[in-house]
Amino acid sequence: MRIKLTIEYDGTHYCGWQRQPNGVTIQETLEKELYKLTGEMIALHGSGRTDSGVHAFGQVAHFDTSSRIPPEKFCYALNTGLPRDIRVQASESVPDDFHARFGAKAKHYRYTMRLAPHAGAINRNFELHIHEKLDIDAMRKAAQLIAGKHDFASFAASGSAIEDTTRVIYRSELASLESYLIYDIIGNGFLYNMVRIIVGTLLHIGKNSLPPDHMQSVIAAKNRAAAADTAPAKGLALMEVFYDVFL
Amino acid sequence: MRIKLTIEYDGTHYCGWQRQPNGVTIQETLEKELYKLTGEMIALHGSGRTDSGVHAFGQVAHFDTSSRIPPEKFCYALNTGLPRDIRVQASESVPDDFHARFGAKAKHYRYTMRLAPHAGAINRNFELHIHEKLDIDAMRKAAQLIAGKHDFASFAASGSAIEDTTRVIYRSELASLESYLIYDIIGNGFLYNMVRIIVGTLLHIGKNSLPPDHMQSVIAAKNRAAAADTAPAKGLALMEVFYDVFL
Repeated sequence: MRIKLTIEYDGTHYCGWQRQPNGVTIQETLEKELYKLTGEMIALHGSGRTDSGVHAFGQVAHFDTSSRIPPEKFCYALNTGLPRDIRVQASESVPDDFHARFGAKAKHYRYTMRLAPHAGAINRNFELHIHEKLDIDAMRKAAQLIAGKHDFASFAASGSAIEDTTRVIYRSELASLESYLIYDIIGNGFLYNMVRIIVGTLLHIGKNSLPPDHMQSVIAAKNRAAAADTAPAKGLALMEVFYDVFL
Repeated sequence: MRIKLTIEYDGTHYCGWQRQPNGVTIQETLEKELYKLTGEMIALHGSGRTDSGVHAFGQVAHFDTSSRIPPEKFCYALNTGLPRDIRVQASESVPDDFHARFGAKAKHYRYTMRLAPHAGAINRNFELHIHEKLDIDAMRKAAQLIAGKHDFASFAASGSAIEDTTRVIYRSELASLESYLIYDIIGNGFLYNMVRIIVGTLLHIGKNSLPPDHMQSVIAAKNRAAAADTAPAKGLALMEVFYDVFL
Protein backbone atom coordinates (compact mmCIF):
# COMPACT_ATOMS: atom_id res chain seq x y z
CA MET A 1 0.00 0.00 0.00
CA ARG A 2 1.28 3.44 -0.93
CA ILE A 3 0.67 6.33 1.49
CA LYS A 4 0.94 10.05 0.80
CA LEU A 5 1.89 12.37 3.67
CA THR A 6 1.47 16.14 3.83
CA ILE A 7 4.01 17.54 6.28
CA GLU A 8 4.52 20.88 8.00
CA TYR A 9 7.89 21.62 9.58
CA ASP A 10 9.93 24.32 11.20
CA GLY A 11 13.28 23.73 9.49
CA THR A 12 15.27 25.87 11.94
CA HIS A 13 16.85 23.02 13.86
CA TYR A 14 17.30 20.54 11.00
CA CYS A 15 19.97 20.00 8.35
CA GLY A 16 17.28 20.17 5.68
CA TRP A 17 14.96 17.50 4.33
CA GLN A 18 17.30 14.90 2.93
CA ARG A 19 19.01 12.18 4.96
CA GLN A 20 22.76 12.81 5.33
CA PRO A 21 25.64 11.47 7.38
CA ASN A 22 26.13 14.50 9.63
CA GLY A 23 23.20 16.20 11.31
CA VAL A 24 19.56 15.40 11.86
CA THR A 25 17.20 15.81 8.89
CA ILE A 26 13.43 15.85 8.49
CA GLN A 27 13.38 12.77 6.26
CA GLU A 28 15.41 10.71 8.73
CA THR A 29 13.26 11.84 11.68
CA LEU A 30 10.12 10.72 9.85
CA GLU A 31 11.66 7.44 8.71
CA LYS A 32 12.62 6.62 12.31
CA GLU A 33 9.03 7.16 13.42
CA LEU A 34 7.75 5.04 10.54
CA TYR A 35 10.09 2.26 11.66
CA LYS A 36 8.80 2.52 15.24
CA LEU A 37 5.21 2.29 14.01
CA THR A 38 5.54 -0.43 11.39
CA GLY A 39 8.76 -2.33 12.16
CA GLU A 40 9.61 -1.79 8.50
CA MET A 41 12.69 -0.03 7.13
CA ILE A 42 10.71 2.49 5.13
CA ALA A 43 12.22 4.78 2.50
CA LEU A 44 10.30 8.03 2.43
CA HIS A 45 10.27 9.85 -0.93
CA GLY A 46 9.85 13.62 -0.67
CA SER A 47 8.63 15.94 -3.45
CA GLY A 48 12.11 17.48 -3.30
CA ARG A 49 14.72 18.63 -0.82
CA THR A 50 14.53 21.69 1.30
CA ASP A 51 17.76 23.15 2.64
CA SER A 52 18.80 23.59 6.23
CA GLY A 53 16.64 26.32 7.80
CA VAL A 54 13.98 26.24 5.06
CA HIS A 55 10.45 25.54 6.28
CA ALA A 56 7.42 23.77 4.86
CA PHE A 57 3.71 24.14 5.37
CA GLY A 58 2.90 21.49 2.79
CA GLN A 59 5.82 19.23 1.92
CA VAL A 60 4.56 15.98 0.35
CA ALA A 61 6.16 12.55 0.63
CA HIS A 62 5.15 8.96 -0.11
CA PHE A 63 6.13 5.52 1.14
CA ASP A 64 5.11 1.90 0.74
CA THR A 65 4.09 -0.27 3.63
CA SER A 66 2.34 -3.52 4.40
CA SER A 67 1.29 -2.19 7.81
CA ARG A 68 -2.37 -2.55 8.81
CA ILE A 69 -2.54 0.98 10.21
CA PRO A 70 -5.40 2.64 8.30
CA PRO A 71 -3.92 5.19 5.85
CA GLU A 72 -5.77 8.17 7.34
CA LYS A 73 -4.54 7.25 10.84
CA PHE A 74 -0.84 7.45 9.99
CA CYS A 75 -0.79 11.20 10.65
CA TYR A 76 -2.13 10.76 14.19
CA ALA A 77 0.20 7.85 14.91
CA LEU A 78 3.26 9.67 13.56
CA ASN A 79 2.49 12.91 15.41
CA THR A 80 2.42 11.05 18.73
CA GLY A 81 6.13 10.33 18.43
CA LEU A 82 7.44 13.18 16.29
CA PRO A 83 9.06 16.29 17.76
CA ARG A 84 6.73 19.30 17.90
CA ASP A 85 8.52 21.06 15.04
CA ILE A 86 7.39 18.38 12.57
CA ARG A 87 3.65 17.72 12.18
CA VAL A 88 2.06 15.45 9.63
CA GLN A 89 -1.08 17.31 8.59
CA ALA A 90 -2.64 14.57 6.45
CA SER A 91 -2.13 10.96 5.37
CA GLU A 92 -4.02 9.09 2.69
CA SER A 93 -3.84 6.03 0.51
CA VAL A 94 -2.77 6.72 -3.09
CA PRO A 95 -2.45 4.56 -6.22
CA ASP A 96 0.82 2.65 -6.61
CA ASP A 97 1.89 4.90 -9.46
CA PHE A 98 1.69 8.06 -7.35
CA HIS A 99 5.16 9.52 -6.88
CA ALA A 100 5.76 12.51 -4.61
CA ARG A 101 8.66 13.75 -6.71
CA PHE A 102 8.05 12.64 -10.29
CA GLY A 103 4.30 13.25 -10.09
CA ALA A 104 4.59 16.84 -8.83
CA LYS A 105 3.12 19.23 -11.42
CA ALA A 106 3.92 22.44 -9.58
CA LYS A 107 5.22 23.83 -6.30
CA HIS A 108 4.43 27.00 -4.44
CA TYR A 109 7.18 28.68 -2.43
CA ARG A 110 6.87 31.82 -0.31
CA TYR A 111 9.67 34.11 0.87
CA THR A 112 8.93 36.51 3.73
CA MET A 113 10.80 39.77 4.34
CA ARG A 114 10.33 42.14 7.27
CA LEU A 115 11.01 45.78 6.44
CA ALA A 116 11.65 47.56 9.73
CA PRO A 117 14.42 49.25 11.68
CA HIS A 118 14.75 46.19 13.96
CA ALA A 119 14.45 42.43 13.50
CA GLY A 120 11.35 40.73 14.85
CA ALA A 121 11.57 38.49 17.94
CA ILE A 122 8.53 36.31 17.38
CA ASN A 123 9.05 35.40 13.72
CA ARG A 124 12.85 35.64 13.83
CA ASN A 125 13.33 32.20 12.25
CA PHE A 126 10.74 32.70 9.49
CA GLU A 127 11.56 36.07 7.97
CA LEU A 128 14.51 37.97 6.59
CA HIS A 129 14.96 41.32 8.30
CA ILE A 130 15.80 44.21 5.99
CA HIS A 131 16.52 47.63 7.42
CA GLU A 132 17.62 49.30 4.19
CA LYS A 133 15.18 51.29 2.12
CA LEU A 134 13.88 49.32 -0.87
CA ASP A 135 12.42 50.42 -4.17
CA ILE A 136 9.44 48.10 -3.88
CA ASP A 137 7.95 49.18 -7.18
CA ALA A 138 11.09 48.19 -9.06
CA MET A 139 11.14 44.86 -7.22
CA ARG A 140 7.49 44.17 -8.01
CA LYS A 141 8.00 44.78 -11.73
CA ALA A 142 11.18 42.68 -11.75
CA ALA A 143 9.35 39.84 -9.98
CA GLN A 144 6.73 39.75 -12.74
CA LEU A 145 9.46 39.23 -15.33
CA ILE A 146 10.29 35.86 -13.75
CA ALA A 147 6.91 34.45 -14.81
CA GLY A 148 6.88 32.41 -18.02
CA LYS A 149 9.12 29.80 -19.57
CA HIS A 150 12.80 30.70 -19.20
CA ASP A 151 16.20 29.14 -19.00
CA PHE A 152 16.99 29.85 -15.33
CA ALA A 153 20.68 28.89 -15.50
CA SER A 154 21.57 32.23 -13.85
CA PHE A 155 19.53 31.18 -10.81
CA ALA A 156 21.02 27.73 -10.21
CA ALA A 157 23.61 27.32 -7.47
CA SER A 158 26.95 26.70 -9.16
CA GLY A 159 28.04 23.09 -9.04
CA SER A 160 24.57 21.66 -9.57
CA ALA A 161 24.66 18.91 -12.18
CA ILE A 162 21.28 19.50 -13.85
CA GLU A 163 21.55 19.92 -17.61
CA ASP A 164 18.17 21.27 -18.59
CA THR A 165 17.74 24.50 -16.66
CA THR A 166 14.51 25.59 -18.34
CA ARG A 167 11.48 25.88 -16.07
CA VAL A 168 7.98 27.30 -16.36
CA ILE A 169 6.94 29.82 -13.71
CA TYR A 170 3.17 30.22 -13.47
CA ARG A 171 3.16 32.98 -10.90
CA SER A 172 5.82 35.32 -9.53
CA GLU A 173 4.44 38.13 -7.39
CA LEU A 174 5.68 40.45 -4.72
CA ALA A 175 3.06 41.79 -2.29
CA SER A 176 3.55 44.51 0.28
CA LEU A 177 1.52 44.06 3.47
CA GLU A 178 2.11 46.50 6.34
CA SER A 179 5.80 46.09 7.17
CA TYR A 180 6.08 42.80 5.28
CA LEU A 181 7.11 41.96 1.74
CA ILE A 182 5.81 38.57 0.64
CA TYR A 183 7.20 36.94 -2.51
CA ASP A 184 5.12 34.08 -3.94
CA ILE A 185 6.38 31.89 -6.74
CA ILE A 186 4.66 28.89 -8.34
CA GLY A 187 6.43 26.87 -11.01
CA ASN A 188 6.66 23.44 -12.57
CA GLY A 189 10.05 22.91 -11.00
CA PHE A 190 12.92 24.71 -9.33
CA LEU A 191 16.69 24.49 -9.66
CA TYR A 192 18.86 24.20 -6.56
CA ASN A 193 18.62 27.46 -4.56
CA MET A 194 16.62 29.04 -7.39
CA VAL A 195 14.03 30.81 -5.23
CA ARG A 196 16.64 32.18 -2.86
CA ILE A 197 18.80 33.45 -5.75
CA ILE A 198 15.74 35.12 -7.33
CA VAL A 199 14.95 36.79 -3.97
CA GLY A 200 18.57 37.87 -3.61
CA THR A 201 18.41 39.43 -7.06
CA LEU A 202 15.09 41.15 -6.28
CA LEU A 203 16.69 42.62 -3.14
CA HIS A 204 19.70 43.78 -5.16
CA ILE A 205 17.29 45.56 -7.53
CA GLY A 206 15.33 47.05 -4.62
CA LYS A 207 18.36 48.31 -2.71
CA ASN A 208 19.91 49.93 -5.77
CA SER A 209 16.74 51.06 -7.53
CA LEU A 210 17.82 49.19 -10.65
CA PRO A 211 15.40 49.22 -13.57
CA PRO A 212 13.28 46.06 -13.72
CA ASP A 213 14.88 45.09 -17.01
CA HIS A 214 17.99 44.32 -14.99
CA MET A 215 16.12 41.08 -14.24
CA GLN A 216 15.78 40.43 -17.97
CA SER A 217 19.52 40.77 -18.49
CA VAL A 218 20.22 38.45 -15.54
CA ILE A 219 17.93 35.82 -17.09
CA ALA A 220 19.51 36.33 -20.52
CA ALA A 221 23.06 35.92 -19.15
CA LYS A 222 22.47 32.23 -18.25
CA ASN A 223 25.33 32.62 -15.81
CA ARG A 224 25.15 32.38 -12.01
CA ALA A 225 27.57 35.30 -11.74
CA ALA A 226 24.98 37.65 -13.28
CA ALA A 227 22.54 37.14 -10.39
CA ALA A 228 23.00 38.43 -6.86
CA ASP A 229 23.76 36.59 -3.62
CA THR A 230 21.54 33.76 -2.41
CA ALA A 231 19.04 35.08 0.16
CA PRO A 232 19.14 33.38 3.61
CA ALA A 233 17.22 30.13 4.07
CA LYS A 234 15.02 31.16 6.98
CA GLY A 235 12.67 33.38 4.96
CA LEU A 236 11.72 30.52 2.64
CA ALA A 237 8.83 28.07 3.01
CA LEU A 238 7.45 25.38 0.71
CA MET A 239 3.74 26.15 0.83
CA GLU A 240 2.14 23.49 -1.37
CA VAL A 241 2.90 20.79 -3.92
CA PHE A 242 0.38 20.30 -6.73
CA TYR A 243 -0.25 16.91 -8.35
CA ASP A 244 -3.14 17.80 -10.61
CA VAL A 245 -2.55 19.76 -13.76
CA PHE A 246 -1.74 23.29 -12.67
CA LEU A 247 -3.48 26.26 -14.36
CA MET B 1 16.39 61.33 31.68
CA ARG B 2 13.42 59.00 31.34
CA ILE B 3 13.36 56.56 28.40
CA LYS B 4 10.40 54.62 27.04
CA LEU B 5 11.05 51.27 25.37
CA THR B 6 8.69 49.32 23.10
CA ILE B 7 9.62 45.64 23.28
CA GLU B 8 8.73 42.55 21.26
CA TYR B 9 9.42 39.14 22.77
CA ASP B 10 8.88 35.46 22.27
CA GLY B 11 7.96 34.44 25.82
CA THR B 12 8.42 30.69 25.22
CA HIS B 13 11.73 30.33 27.00
CA TYR B 14 11.18 32.87 29.80
CA CYS B 15 9.52 32.73 33.21
CA GLY B 16 7.41 35.73 32.26
CA TRP B 17 8.15 39.44 32.40
CA GLN B 18 8.77 40.07 36.05
CA ARG B 19 12.08 39.48 37.83
CA GLN B 20 11.95 36.50 40.17
CA PRO B 21 14.38 34.35 42.15
CA ASN B 22 14.10 31.18 40.03
CA GLY B 23 14.24 31.30 36.27
CA VAL B 24 15.19 33.89 33.69
CA THR B 25 12.69 36.68 32.98
CA ILE B 26 12.37 39.32 30.28
CA GLN B 27 12.70 42.22 32.73
CA GLU B 28 15.92 40.83 34.24
CA THR B 29 17.40 40.12 30.79
CA LEU B 30 16.75 43.73 29.74
CA GLU B 31 18.05 45.16 33.04
CA LYS B 32 21.31 43.21 32.64
CA GLU B 33 21.79 44.70 29.17
CA LEU B 34 21.02 48.18 30.49
CA TYR B 35 23.68 47.67 33.16
CA LYS B 36 26.21 46.59 30.54
CA LEU B 37 25.45 49.69 28.47
CA THR B 38 25.25 52.32 31.19
CA GLY B 39 27.06 50.90 34.22
CA GLU B 40 23.94 51.85 36.18
CA MET B 41 21.74 49.49 38.22
CA ILE B 42 18.59 50.35 36.34
CA ALA B 43 15.09 49.36 37.45
CA LEU B 44 12.92 48.81 34.41
CA HIS B 45 9.19 49.47 34.91
CA GLY B 46 6.90 47.49 32.61
CA SER B 47 3.31 48.33 31.74
CA GLY B 48 2.42 45.11 33.54
CA ARG B 49 3.50 41.50 33.87
CA THR B 50 3.11 38.85 31.29
CA ASP B 51 3.14 35.21 32.42
CA SER B 52 5.57 32.51 31.44
CA GLY B 53 4.98 31.59 27.79
CA VAL B 54 2.97 34.74 27.01
CA HIS B 55 4.36 36.86 24.17
CA ALA B 56 4.45 40.56 23.36
CA PHE B 57 4.61 42.53 20.16
CA GLY B 58 4.37 45.86 21.98
CA GLN B 59 5.22 45.64 25.68
CA VAL B 60 6.16 49.09 27.01
CA ALA B 61 8.61 49.85 29.81
CA HIS B 62 10.40 52.93 31.14
CA PHE B 63 13.61 53.61 33.05
CA ASP B 64 15.68 56.54 34.27
CA THR B 65 19.29 57.02 33.35
CA SER B 66 22.01 59.62 33.31
CA SER B 67 23.71 57.89 30.40
CA ARG B 68 24.72 59.98 27.40
CA ILE B 69 23.46 57.40 24.92
CA PRO B 70 20.93 59.27 22.74
CA PRO B 71 17.40 58.05 23.63
CA GLU B 72 16.59 56.85 20.12
CA LYS B 73 19.85 54.84 20.00
CA PHE B 74 19.05 52.71 23.05
CA CYS B 75 17.08 50.22 20.95
CA TYR B 76 20.05 49.60 18.63
CA ALA B 77 22.50 49.37 21.53
CA LEU B 78 20.27 47.00 23.51
CA ASN B 79 19.55 44.74 20.53
CA THR B 80 23.28 44.21 19.99
CA GLY B 81 23.51 42.32 23.28
CA LEU B 82 20.02 40.90 23.76
CA PRO B 83 19.09 37.34 22.79
CA ARG B 84 17.23 37.09 19.48
CA ASP B 85 13.90 36.33 21.17
CA ILE B 86 13.80 39.82 22.71
CA ARG B 87 13.96 42.85 20.39
CA VAL B 88 13.52 46.46 21.41
CA GLN B 89 11.53 47.96 18.56
CA ALA B 90 11.71 51.60 19.66
CA SER B 91 13.26 53.85 22.31
CA GLU B 92 12.45 57.48 22.97
CA SER B 93 12.83 60.17 25.56
CA VAL B 94 9.65 60.86 27.57
CA PRO B 95 8.71 63.44 30.22
CA ASP B 96 9.64 62.58 33.81
CA ASP B 97 6.02 62.01 34.72
CA PHE B 98 5.53 59.30 32.09
CA HIS B 99 4.93 55.95 33.79
CA ALA B 100 4.66 52.73 31.77
CA ARG B 101 2.26 51.15 34.25
CA PHE B 102 0.30 53.98 35.86
CA GLY B 103 0.08 55.99 32.66
CA ALA B 104 -1.35 53.14 30.55
CA LYS B 105 -4.85 54.03 29.35
CA ALA B 106 -5.58 50.78 27.56
CA LYS B 107 -4.02 47.52 26.45
CA HIS B 108 -4.66 45.29 23.47
CA TYR B 109 -4.25 41.53 23.86
CA ARG B 110 -4.71 38.91 21.16
CA TYR B 111 -5.34 35.20 21.63
CA THR B 112 -4.74 32.89 18.65
CA MET B 113 -6.43 29.51 18.18
CA ARG B 114 -5.76 27.02 15.39
CA LEU B 115 -8.78 24.92 14.45
CA ALA B 116 -7.46 21.86 12.64
CA PRO B 117 -7.10 18.10 13.07
CA HIS B 118 -3.39 18.50 13.87
CA ALA B 119 -1.28 21.05 15.70
CA GLY B 120 0.87 23.40 13.64
CA ALA B 121 4.67 22.98 13.60
CA ILE B 122 5.70 26.49 12.61
CA ASN B 123 3.53 28.48 15.02
CA ARG B 124 3.44 25.80 17.73
CA ASN B 125 4.50 28.21 20.48
CA PHE B 126 2.10 31.00 19.45
CA GLU B 127 -1.26 29.31 19.04
CA LEU B 128 -3.56 26.99 20.91
CA HIS B 129 -4.46 23.94 18.85
CA ILE B 130 -8.11 22.88 19.03
CA HIS B 131 -9.27 19.75 17.26
CA GLU B 132 -12.82 19.69 18.65
CA LYS B 133 -15.66 21.18 16.66
CA LEU B 134 -16.63 24.65 17.96
CA ASP B 135 -19.84 26.62 17.71
CA ILE B 136 -18.09 29.74 16.50
CA ASP B 137 -21.28 31.74 16.23
CA ALA B 138 -22.07 31.16 19.92
CA MET B 139 -18.50 32.14 20.83
CA ARG B 140 -18.64 35.29 18.74
CA LYS B 141 -21.83 36.47 20.42
CA ALA B 142 -20.50 35.58 23.87
CA ALA B 143 -17.30 37.52 23.16
CA GLN B 144 -19.30 40.64 22.39
CA LEU B 145 -20.94 40.46 25.84
CA ILE B 146 -17.53 41.04 27.45
CA ALA B 147 -17.41 44.58 26.07
CA GLY B 148 -18.51 47.34 28.43
CA LYS B 149 -17.96 48.15 32.09
CA HIS B 150 -18.29 45.03 34.26
CA ASP B 151 -17.12 43.57 37.52
CA PHE B 152 -14.82 40.85 36.19
CA ALA B 153 -14.33 39.04 39.53
CA SER B 154 -15.27 35.74 37.83
CA PHE B 155 -12.28 36.17 35.50
CA ALA B 156 -9.58 36.87 38.08
CA ALA B 157 -7.23 34.03 39.08
CA SER B 158 -8.10 33.04 42.63
CA GLY B 159 -5.64 34.30 45.19
CA SER B 160 -5.10 37.66 43.51
CA ALA B 161 -5.25 40.47 46.06
CA ILE B 162 -6.91 43.17 43.95
CA GLU B 163 -10.05 44.61 45.53
CA ASP B 164 -11.65 46.55 42.74
CA THR B 165 -12.33 44.03 39.99
CA THR B 166 -14.28 46.39 37.73
CA ARG B 167 -12.76 47.07 34.32
CA VAL B 168 -13.88 48.72 31.11
CA ILE B 169 -13.52 46.65 27.93
CA TYR B 170 -13.60 48.78 24.78
CA ARG B 171 -13.46 45.93 22.30
CA SER B 172 -13.96 42.18 22.56
CA GLU B 173 -14.19 40.43 19.22
CA LEU B 174 -13.69 36.97 17.84
CA ALA B 175 -12.74 36.73 14.16
CA SER B 176 -12.57 33.58 12.09
CA LEU B 177 -9.86 33.57 9.41
CA GLU B 178 -9.30 30.37 7.42
CA SER B 179 -8.41 27.78 10.06
CA TYR B 180 -7.68 30.40 12.70
CA LEU B 181 -9.80 31.98 15.42
CA ILE B 182 -8.42 35.31 16.60
CA TYR B 183 -9.73 36.88 19.79
CA ASP B 184 -8.94 40.58 20.26
CA ILE B 185 -9.61 42.39 23.49
CA ILE B 186 -8.86 46.01 24.38
CA GLY B 187 -9.56 47.31 27.86
CA ASN B 188 -8.49 49.90 30.40
CA GLY B 189 -6.96 47.18 32.56
CA PHE B 190 -6.90 43.45 33.11
CA LEU B 191 -7.03 41.26 36.21
CA TYR B 192 -4.51 38.47 36.67
CA ASN B 193 -5.11 35.79 34.01
CA MET B 194 -8.27 37.61 32.91
CA VAL B 195 -7.81 37.23 29.15
CA ARG B 196 -6.90 33.56 29.43
CA ILE B 197 -9.93 32.85 31.65
CA ILE B 198 -12.21 34.69 29.20
CA VAL B 199 -10.78 32.60 26.34
CA GLY B 200 -11.22 29.42 28.38
CA THR B 201 -14.86 30.36 28.94
CA LEU B 202 -15.38 31.17 25.25
CA LEU B 203 -13.97 27.74 24.38
CA HIS B 204 -16.28 26.10 26.94
CA ILE B 205 -19.22 27.85 25.26
CA GLY B 206 -18.00 26.85 21.80
CA LYS B 207 -17.38 23.20 22.63
CA ASN B 208 -20.75 22.77 24.30
CA SER B 209 -22.81 25.10 22.09
CA LEU B 210 -23.95 27.00 25.17
CA PRO B 211 -26.18 30.00 24.57
CA PRO B 212 -24.22 33.28 24.61
CA ASP B 213 -26.09 34.40 27.72
CA HIS B 214 -24.03 31.80 29.58
CA MET B 215 -21.34 34.50 29.44
CA GLN B 216 -23.74 36.93 31.12
CA SER B 217 -24.37 34.55 34.00
CA VAL B 218 -20.62 33.94 34.41
CA ILE B 219 -20.06 37.71 34.66
CA ALA B 220 -22.99 38.08 37.08
CA ALA B 221 -21.69 35.31 39.37
CA LYS B 222 -18.60 37.34 40.37
CA ASN B 223 -17.03 34.04 41.29
CA ARG B 224 -13.97 32.40 39.67
CA ALA B 225 -15.70 29.01 39.90
CA ALA B 226 -18.40 30.14 37.47
CA ALA B 227 -15.87 30.61 34.64
CA ALA B 228 -14.05 27.82 32.81
CA ASP B 229 -10.40 26.76 32.93
CA THR B 230 -7.62 29.21 32.14
CA ALA B 231 -6.54 28.85 28.50
CA PRO B 232 -2.82 28.03 27.96
CA ALA B 233 -0.33 30.90 27.94
CA LYS B 234 1.21 30.32 24.53
CA GLY B 235 -1.79 31.60 22.51
CA LEU B 236 -1.66 35.01 24.20
CA ALA B 237 0.23 38.11 23.07
CA LEU B 238 0.27 41.68 24.36
CA MET B 239 -0.13 43.62 21.13
CA GLU B 240 -0.06 47.26 22.19
CA VAL B 241 -0.21 49.57 25.20
CA PHE B 242 -2.00 52.89 24.74
CA TYR B 243 -1.01 56.04 26.65
CA ASP B 244 -3.29 58.54 25.00
CA VAL B 245 -6.97 58.61 25.84
CA PHE B 246 -8.45 55.52 24.23
CA LEU B 247 -11.69 55.87 22.19
